[in-house]
Amino acid sequence: MYSGFVTAIDFIGTFAFAISGATAGARKGLDLFGVLVLAFAAATAGGIARDTMLGATPPVALVDWRYLAISALAGLATFYRSETIERLRNPVQLFDAIGLGLFAVIGAGKALAYGVGPVGAVMLGVLTGIGGGMVRDVLVMQVPGVLQRELYAVAALLGAAIVVCGDALSLPATPVAVGGAVACFALRFMAMRYGWQLPAATPRT
Amino acid sequence: MYSGFVTAIDFIGTFAFAISGATAGARKGLDLFGVLVLAFAAATAGGIARDTMLGATPPVALVDWRYLAISALAGLATFYRSETIERLRNPVQLFDAIGLGLFAVIGAGKALAYGVGPVGAVMLGVLTGIGGGMVRDVLVMQVPGVLQRELYAVAALLGAAIVVCGDALSLPATPVAVGGAVACFALRFMAMRYGWQLPAATPRT
Amino acid sequence: MYSGFVTAIDFIGTFAFAISGATAGARKGLDLFGVLVLAFAAATAGGIARDTMLGATPPVALVDWRYLAISALAGLATFYRSETIERLRNPVQLFDAIGLGLFAVIGAGKALAYGVGPVGAVMLGVLTGIGGGMVRDVLVMQVPGVLQRELYAVAALLGAAIVVCGDALSLPATPVAVGGAVACFALRFMAMRYGWQLPAATPRT
Repeated sequence: MYSGFVTAIDFIGTFAFAISGATAGARKGLDLFGVLVLAFAAATAGGIARDTMLGATPPVALVDWRYLAISALAGLATFYRSETIERLRNPVQLFDAIGLGLFAVIGAGKALAYGVGPVGAVMLGVLTGIGGGMVRDVLVMQVPGVLQRELYAVAALLGAAIVVCGDALSLPATPVAVGGAVACFALRFMAMRYGWQLPAATPRT
Repeated sequence: MYSGFVTAIDFIGTFAFAISGATAGARKGLDLFGVLVLAFAAATAGGIARDTMLGATPPVALVDWRYLAISALAGLATFYRSETIERLRNPVQLFDAIGLGLFAVIGAGKALAYGVGPVGAVMLGVLTGIGGGMVRDVLVMQVPGVLQRELYAVAALLGAAIVVCGDALSLPATPVAVGGAVACFALRFMAMRYGWQLPAATPRT
Repeated sequence: MYSGFVTAIDFIGTFAFAISGATAGARKGLDLFGVLVLAFAAATAGGIARDTMLGATPPVALVDWRYLAISALAGLATFYRSETIERLRNPVQLFDAIGLGLFAVIGAGKALAYGVGPVGAVMLGVLTGIGGGMVRDVLVMQVPGVLQRELYAVAALLGAAIVVCGDALSLPATPVAVGGAVACFALRFMAMRYGWQLPAATPRT
């Protein structure tokens, strides 16, 4: 049952990141296939990096056709309905925040299942969460949001740490994962909404 | 015999991508070593990503000195004869298209040989084909061509899909690979020549 | 003893690259966590790529908490004391040069220990050395220094080649590694100081 639950939230995260990637691509005026490529890259780069670093090769996102299908669906919907999505406030960041929480808990859980220790599992969770957005931003030539947005990596760290702590305390995996994803999303969303942020360095010229 | 054939087209693809990388570097005014690094990165990034994701470590391009030698040769030729190459129409894209077709069929074939299923093999073929050009473009701070050029990823998909279909039908591997590479190159070349393209999103400001 | 020595110089290299990453981030005006993320990325990307390509998964920098702690320490010091560091001449490049030499010899040595041949070991050494700086520069949207700075990759090549030659000649590993790191740093430092450089291509517009 836990494994079906994990697959379900992995697919939801994939859909959310694919929309964030497709929206970023549509804003750049990419053609349909460029939008689809960016949707797929944003949706799967974090998981591909995680699986490659775990030695879980080939990465599941490349061999299970459903990741491609979900990304393509999200990309097509965004391409032909981008006005609807743009009506949301800050859609790239909103869908990114949903995917961030889901992927951070999935990544940490998969790392634990592969026998990685607590520090490594938290870091692989953070990497799974932030990887897709970093690749998306670099491909459209923007400084990745994780480097400059309010409490972005902190939120991923929170979600992954909740999963790892829950595992150490032998709590049931499903509610802990839900709690981690919700906590991550909530922190990120509040930070966006209310502009919470860490102190920033003064840029030099 | 098939294995010698694969090595031969892998080397030709390496040479083609190395010229595209070196030409992009020379246009940016890089020094000799920068041009050589960019030639090597463009020529090998796709194959290195493919091998790493297949668990075929260490990647062949890092342990077989001939990939380095071929890239260096292409890089030196480009650096000292860039006027000749620039006389071609759109040389970065032309050599990129040659490498794209060759690497897409090689990547798909290697994935099949490692027991990856049809969807995964097509995707690893596409990744092998587009990886070098993406890294080349990001390193010189350009939005990767695969996101915005006419039918770029579609062409790689066609080449890789031909290899996977030929394998499913038990057709002889060598002519199928040649056919896939030619079909990919032809589609990409015609798209460049006649400006064929998919519908594009309207960029927002 | 050699292994403790390797860990020590790996930590020093991590510290040096983390300072270079944090300084680059502080200059961009990133917030505290962005600076820490960039410090960690610069400090560990080369080693993570090396381990992933060697099949030594999961990468040591993700499972040993000390890499994270060292990067965080360097990042915090830089964030709160960036004036001190900026008083140095060219601090990003200076700490980068220290890390370059240390990581090039470590990478080559680890590749040899995993049974990689001499060409592959030199290339993995170079990759370990240049990887962190490439990721740092791309994340802040700059053309990586390795493509344009004086004798950057040449210096990494020198350090890694010294380790591989020393191994082939069965010389004692520790002094050879020190010699390789010093030679790499010295060449890079002199190239920066005296503007030594390779011939450059003329940029086209």
